[in-house]
Amino acid sequence: MAMTPIENAAEGLPKRVKIVEVGVRDGLQNEKVQVATAVKIALINRLTNAGIQSIEVGSFVSPKWVPQMADTAEVVRGLPVKPGVAYSVLVPNMRGLEQALETGCREVAVFAAASEAFSQKNINCSIAESLARFGPVIEAAQKAGVNVRGYVSCVMNCPFTGDVPAEKVAEVAGALYAMGCYEISLGDTTGAGGPLATRRMIDACARQVPVTALAGHFHDTYGMALANIYASLESGVTAFDSSVAGLGGCPYSPGATGNVATEDVVYLMQQLRIETGLDLPLLVEAGNYISTYLERPANSRIAKVLSAKQSPTITGAASSQAV
Amino acid sequence: MAMTPIENAAEGLPKRVKIVEVGVRDGLQNEKVQVATAVKIALINRLTNAGIQSIEVGSFVSPKWVPQMADTAEVVRGLPVKPGVAYSVLVPNMRGLEQALETGCREVAVFAAASEAFSQKNINCSIAESLARFGPVIEAAQKAGVNVRGYVSCVMNCPFTGDVPAEKVAEVAGALYAMGCYEISLGDTTGAGGPLATRRMIDACARQVPVTALAGHFHDTYGMALANIYASLESGVTAFDSSVAGLGGCPYSPGATGNVATEDVVYLMQQLRIETGLDLPLLVEAGNYISTYLERPANSRIAKVLSAKQSPTITGAASSQAV
Repeated sequence: MAMTPIENAAEGLPKRVKIVEVGVRDGLQNEKVQVATAVKIALINRLTNAGIQSIEVGSFVSPKWVPQMADTAEVVRGLPVKPGVAYSVLVPNMRGLEQALETGCREVAVFAAASEAFSQKNINCSIAESLARFGPVIEAAQKAGVNVRGYVSCVMNCPFTGDVPAEKVAEVAGALYAMGCYEISLGDTTGAGGPLATRRMIDACARQVPVTALAGHFHDTYGMALANIYASLESGVTAFDSSVAGLGGCPYSPGATGNVATEDVVYLMQQLRIETGLDLPLLVEAGNYISTYLERPANSRIAKVLSAKQSPTITGAASSQAV
Repeated sequence: MAMTPIENAAEGLPKRVKIVEVGVRDGLQNEKVQVATAVKIALINRLTNAGIQSIEVGSFVSPKWVPQMADTAEVVRGLPVKPGVAYSVLVPNMRGLEQALETGCREVAVFAAASEAFSQKNINCSIAESLARFGPVIEAAQKAGVNVRGYVSCVMNCPFTGDVPAEKVAEVAGALYAMGCYEISLGDTTGAGGPLATRRMIDACARQVPVTALAGHFHDTYGMALANIYASLESGVTAFDSSVAGLGGCPYSPGATGNVATEDVVYLMQQLRIETGLDLPLLVEAGNYISTYLERPANSRIAKVLSAKQSPTITGAASSQAV
């Protein structure tokens, strides 16, 4: 068996990664509750105080489809001015970009799928049509000096058609990059993919896009997210999307998690001696803030461990014959 | 950056692993409820029907300390006879071994710690004293033709003293192996260790014990278990302990998980194309059986996903602009 020596494994991992916080957008848009604008802004403040430098704050999509994001313009206008922090909004089309530009956004994101069936169901057009639609959007954004991030969804698995070929993901990622996206976020929408598929998918994408321009966006529905992130690090990925307090949940599963929790990703990075620039206790506080508002416990392992440690029952930790 | 090519990573992983089910012992001993003997036996039956071939069924320790295991002799007498299935019981000392032999057990397990503080608090003696005590126990077991498995706890982290050196773990693992244990299970008792510490610890142990005689025993309290298992596979480990339905919980944390769930480990192995010989739907059924008895949902991601998929709300899966 050809094993990887630990020394090489440690050397092979990046020294520093960027965390892109998506809880305020990808998280809250999947919550049933409409979160007040002031609460969103207060949450963003707490997150940037914890060191977050890249954060999605909303999307200019039809409020008919995503009512949770209807206040995006207000959120953007209320954003704290913090040097070095990049705020981003999702735009589905030219009309969305226009709204973003009018509101003064400096970064936008466009989103395509690697599965035809998902593309049709999610954004009502084929993959090719969506890419054709984004071309002028990206061009107009660049003319306005606005950075564009690209998302690819269903990078391992489609909820309608199952396994998605890595080559298809690489093709869509490569197209978005060629059109001018500075970073391509690769989303395991169902959360069903594992570390081996992750490495195959990342390695295929890295043949079309520099690996330093790829980001991993993992959902923890099947518990695979941290193992997939570890596998992505082995493939050289240095950016990851995550959601404070695991905001978002799974759209069809009460109690199941959706986006991997930012706190858990940061804990993993600490264990791997990889710098994130983030303050874990402040992140946990930010997660507790929004979770209290949503009237539920924060959906991250680290928040649960910390809250258990603060409870008086910790003295029972060393039960007899524990292994 | 020295990256590991995916081809080598895939080649470097084992083709088949053994899953040791510890839910009936390590899991149920941490439950507040005293589970009826007949229910334990019915659970064991369901687990072996799902393909489990190695299973811990109880421990001969003082019922004063672990009342949940007081019926171990009855459980052992009621075990289904299934070819190829190894049932094991934990024995803390010669008295425990005698009970095991009287009851007709064919496999026992002994347990030491890699942390002095934990050894003192958990079994009231130093590591050296515990090893000295196990010497005659292992010898007597072998004379009776009974296999002995060794446990080492606190292999990365001690709840009382923090980080545990990999060399200390290797020393204890090596001592147990030299005394005659056929397999050494390495337990991350707190669940706080990450993949890098896992690889360092496994690699240190593999210098004292053949890697094929090592097993990973991970708790998922910090969400690290599956990433640690993936890292262990990269170091060549081919046996893992886990607990159906995540039985056990964390002794000091209501709601937090303790042992990693067998269902989730098997799902990970399926994703890695690694054979376990287990039937995942039957395992989930076994987990649901005991969880129903304990009046709570099964604490595995896979059970949660499956139960959500059976709910009528699945039609809401494709929310607009999901990424």
